[in-house]
Amino acid sequence: MGRSFRKFDFNISSLIQIRVIDAARAAHAGRKTMPIAARLKGSIVGLQTILPSTKDFELEFIYPNSEEALAILRHSAAHLLARSLLRLFPGTRLGFGPSVKDGFYCDFKTSREITESDLPMIESEMRSLVAGGEGGSFECLEVSFERAVRILEETGQPFKLEHLRTRLRENEKIFFYRQGEFLDMSRGPHVMSAELLQHFRLMSVTETHWRGDPSRESLQRIYGTAFFSEEKLNEHLKRLEEAKKRDHRHLGRQLELYAVDPRVGTGVVLWLPKGAVIRRELENFLFEEQTRNGFQRVYSPEIGRVGLFRMSGKNPYSERSYPLFGADRSDSYALRPTCGSQHVVIYQNHPRSYRELPLRFFEFGNVCRYESGEYSGLKRLRAFTRNDAHVFCSEEQAADEFRHCVEMLQKHLLTFGFSNLRIQTCFRSENGISYSGTREMWERWEKVILEECSKLGLVTYPGGEVHPEGPGIDCTVEDSLGREWHFGTVHIDFKVPGEEAFDLSYVGTDNVLHRPMMIHCTPLDSFERFIGVLIEHFAGAFPLWMAPEQVRILIVSPKYEKYAREVEDKFRKQGIRVTGDYRSEKIGAKIRRAQVQLVPYMLIIGERELEGRTVAVRDRVSGSQGNLVVEEAIRSFLREIRDRKLKHDPGTV
Amino acid sequence: MGRSFRKFDFNISSLIQIRVIDAARAAHAGRKTMPIAARLKGSIVGLQTILPSTKDFELEFIYPNSEEALAILRHSAAHLLARSLLRLFPGTRLGFGPSVKDGFYCDFKTSREITESDLPMIESEMRSLVAGGEGGSFECLEVSFERAVRILEETGQPFKLEHLRTRLRENEKIFFYRQGEFLDMSRGPHVMSAELLQHFRLMSVTETHWRGDPSRESLQRIYGTAFFSEEKLNEHLKRLEEAKKRDHRHLGRQLELYAVDPRVGTGVVLWLPKGAVIRRELENFLFEEQTRNGFQRVYSPEIGRVGLFRMSGKNPYSERSYPLFGADRSDSYALRPTCGSQHVVIYQNHPRSYRELPLRFFEFGNVCRYESGEYSGLKRLRAFTRNDAHVFCSEEQAADEFRHCVEMLQKHLLTFGFSNLRIQTCFRSENGISYSGTREMWERWEKVILEECSKLGLVTYPGGEVHPEGPGIDCTVEDSLGREWHFGTVHIDFKVPGEEAFDLSYVGTDNVLHRPMMIHCTPLDSFERFIGVLIEHFAGAFPLWMAPEQVRILIVSPKYEKYAREVEDKFRKQGIRVTGDYRSEKIGAKIRRAQVQLVPYMLIIGERELEGRTVAVRDRVSGSQGNLVVEEAIRSFLREIRDRKLKHDPGTV
Repeated sequence: MGRSFRKFDFNISSLIQIRVIDAARAAHAGRKTMPIAARLKGSIVGLQTILPSTKDFELEFIYPNSEEALAILRHSAAHLLARSLLRLFPGTRLGFGPSVKDGFYCDFKTSREITESDLPMIESEMRSLVAGGEGGSFECLEVSFERAVRILEETGQPFKLEHLRTRLRENEKIFFYRQGEFLDMSRGPHVMSAELLQHFRLMSVTETHWRGDPSRESLQRIYGTAFFSEEKLNEHLKRLEEAKKRDHRHLGRQLELYAVDPRVGTGVVLWLPKGAVIRRELENFLFEEQTRNGFQRVYSPEIGRVGLFRMSGKNPYSERSYPLFGADRSDSYALRPTCGSQHVVIYQNHPRSYRELPLRFFEFGNVCRYESGEYSGLKRLRAFTRNDAHVFCSEEQAADEFRHCVEMLQKHLLTFGFSNLRIQTCFRSENGISYSGTREMWERWEKVILEECSKLGLVTYPGGEVHPEGPGIDCTVEDSLGREWHFGTVHIDFKVPGEEAFDLSYVGTDNVLHRPMMIHCTPLDSFERFIGVLIEHFAGAFPLWMAPEQVRILIVSPKYEKYAREVEDKFRKQGIRVTGDYRSEKIGAKIRRAQVQLVPYMLIIGERELEGRTVAVRDRVSGSQGNLVVEEAIRSFLREIRDRKLKHDPGTV
Repeated sequence: MGRSFRKFDFNISSLIQIRVIDAARAAHAGRKTMPIAARLKGSIVGLQTILPSTKDFELEFIYPNSEEALAILRHSAAHLLARSLLRLFPGTRLGFGPSVKDGFYCDFKTSREITESDLPMIESEMRSLVAGGEGGSFECLEVSFERAVRILEETGQPFKLEHLRTRLRENEKIFFYRQGEFLDMSRGPHVMSAELLQHFRLMSVTETHWRGDPSRESLQRIYGTAFFSEEKLNEHLKRLEEAKKRDHRHLGRQLELYAVDPRVGTGVVLWLPKGAVIRRELENFLFEEQTRNGFQRVYSPEIGRVGLFRMSGKNPYSERSYPLFGADRSDSYALRPTCGSQHVVIYQNHPRSYRELPLRFFEFGNVCRYESGEYSGLKRLRAFTRNDAHVFCSEEQAADEFRHCVEMLQKHLLTFGFSNLRIQTCFRSENGISYSGTREMWERWEKVILEECSKLGLVTYPGGEVHPEGPGIDCTVEDSLGREWHFGTVHIDFKVPGEEAFDLSYVGTDNVLHRPMMIHCTPLDSFERFIGVLIEHFAGAFPLWMAPEQVRILIVSPKYEKYAREVEDKFRKQGIRVTGDYRSEKIGAKIRRAQVQLVPYMLIIGERELEGRTVAVRDRVSGSQGNLVVEEAIRSFLREIRDRKLKHDPGTV
């Protein structure tokens, strides 16, 4: 959802105290859509806010459905929820209640535990407060610190009181918002009236702790969402339903793609034969693409001397890496967290000349990281296979090489039908991190990165994850459910080439030793995480080239089995993953089964097909495609496979 | 080398004491080739031996060049060496001096250290003893224990004396062999005369210990070899020279196939881009072949719960496996030593029916084993990729499945031009090992294994490595240097399917739960070891389908570069690994460089080729192949690649 500001100059007399809503009414006379809030001197303010008496400001109105307006609406919904809880369960102590991505939550402690079955009752209390109009307006009060303390003590809100004392500086303005009997400390802004809160839903109740700290008092948290229209709310709920159906953990089990088993371990997966097909196809795709882009495949071991990984200076990783110990094993080894330092050693296999540069290596590297916290399906694992690529080049080549990497990532991602590619810059900021390289180096290469991205027509945004070794970019895309994923990083490394243990060099045209530049690139991230997202993106219906079962042959009656088996054999000989359904069942039932099992193509064989030595081709999505001679069908499928074509929009089931 | 016995019945009077040599002379009157020894009542005896006075024996003569004759000759050469050492270095104390594969050695302690530069002098002393004829005959003396002790004390041989005391039972016959002044305790047999010892060579001198025990006195060891003719000796020396040139550690470095680096670790390798090509081709070959054979690829993690690996009962492995530890890591994980138990968990992904059997899984599984002792190139590593395949089937299917696995292994190995495939049985023996399954089960399945191998026309030999879990076979082959390698195992597992933690089952046709059989199969062993042998087998000259650089384009003059680059592009687009040598050099020099770099095909381009849009094809081994239109050349190469053809005998450089 884009921004929907409208810029507005407003001329007011310095003698009259005027609120934002007055300005809004004047500016929108006779118009249907009223703003929700406004941007004043860089801050977002509610309509309740009194405008400055000076003339030196600009007012931008914020309208419904913008991200900012949704955040305000949801924040107000959280207040409504808190008020309802206090009415239903007097004595409820409130924690935080902010808006979050896609909704809001409210933390609290009631005398009895709230369960999912209480949610309808709470929702109905909220609705009655909105419908009744009783105390429906959100009134904003500025109070002194002492008064704030007194209000919170009197209303019995110890968490809010602690927050007031520890977090608010005494000279900061303190606001309370009031709705009828309910008075809550809040920075705001809020909507003017609860009338806008018609389209909300409480989603779930979970456990949490005050301030999210497990050592503090345990609280409950109710999640909800709110929109400006019933239509938008329903769209959202449908999307959630769809995401749940497409959850890769559910589909992974149902389609027999992968398995997890406590006997095998936590945070590790077993790829079942069908999932292994998808993974191999993805490996082949990346092999071909990276080879075409001048990268050379290498293999390096999963274990290595601890010192090697330390050299690359990956401190955050080394804490998560697995050390290896054992009887009489004096030598200290660890499971590698990345392949970078091994590629550096490969670079050093012999003295390099400028003639060999750029050298580009890639590896499908099994790595292990000790991740604390929860493991979830394929998206967070202890052992996974990382796509690790590295470029070693001269300083003159580095700009082109950087662009080349970004362009490759971009093309990779388009193959899978992701949309809205965004380039987020990972640039130096002043946050106390110890950076490699000088400030001048960062500035110079940050400029280069922006230039190279703009050559590709890519717009850059700040917000990528910064690597202390050097500047870079993150690629993010949207999947078919509109969710954003980060799938690839390109960044420069000022640190490793100059490490004492490595001391990388090449002989230049001037016959003198130079230091090469090093660029890290991780196309598509890990196979496991990428496939986890792909399962949901495609809703399990993979394009032909990746589908574990590409073609299924269905016979109308057992008498066509012999011909069908000949056809099956021809397809298999061409490397197409084909099966035959030769059961004596109605053809309709067979088609339904193949549809449910997400087989891209069905070939139906009956009398007409036998006579004409053809097959009736049925596309899972678009249905009947008419008859084709067997060889013609094979050619057409092979072409679709070779081109890695996306015949249907991702997620069409 | 085959056996060369000749059976011989010999009729002798009981009144005359007759030696084997007398019988041999009588039997070989007027013939050129005389025997070296004979087989008498199951033992090999020297020609010096006195025949029994009874008539109830058969005598088989042993002739030169048989394995047995070579062993006797080399044993005698070791005596000759010992005698020479005593003459050159009086006071030398002797250790053992046996014949070994391809030669002999003698352990000793002299007053000063012997170096390689002393070997010619020792060799010449040996030759003078042979030529001089002085005390050239090997005389055999049987002595009492007491007399043996006295001789060894008098001749100052403390090692031999210890051996006599600890190893020989007092009622065993003790023999000494005498050559002139030299008297040495030895079981024999020996040749009759040192005259036969014309064709020998001392190879090297190394360090060792008495009885091979590092806690005992350090000795020196001289290795030598001996043959019955100068021709055979030279053949052997040439073969050694060839093996040295082909040493995969040397070629691996020279051809930039792989690297080892102490910073990365001991017993682990880095595959450089060219070696990675070979490895990927091998993976693709195995993927295709195993898929064609109904195996399904799976992937499983390198780390797993320690308990999982214990369940499969691989005690010898678990001692060598790597445990993982770390801060707050209460869960105990290890690096897997095999993929077996993970495949069992995959089998259990859902309840299985007889309709699904046989289920065949394979994996290219990275495994780690803590191997003690030396690491050498690719052949002995800590981290490697194992070809692990497993079949789960009903008891009725097991015989066919076993044969199917052996047949697959056989076909795999033939693709690489190995010869003399031997099947060694791994059957139960009574050596105190704790076997899984009953004696009856072993006997029954050992019979099945023999039957199934004979169906494939394969002769079986004893001597495979026995797995306590069940009977099986090892495949061994000879490489192009005539060396024997073990490259694949098929064996039944009586243990794992019934382990409490697994308790494998399937629903049979009778709707009742049955226990499946499990067969282990390791085609080609590990990628690393197999490629290590392949490098030597092919002497680095890989067949077209595996060659890192398949085709090189050479131009006669710079003016053909444009056309040559067009040709190069066409080859590359078809997936052929092609490069162009566009330097301005004489064509002869370019051809020589491509030959040395073992590129299978050169395409030479000059005026004639440009005009006719052809290329002049040059095969690295057979030379000029005439001109071909570009598309024709591509088709021909693609066919050779697809068929994985061995155009030349392995090792033709």
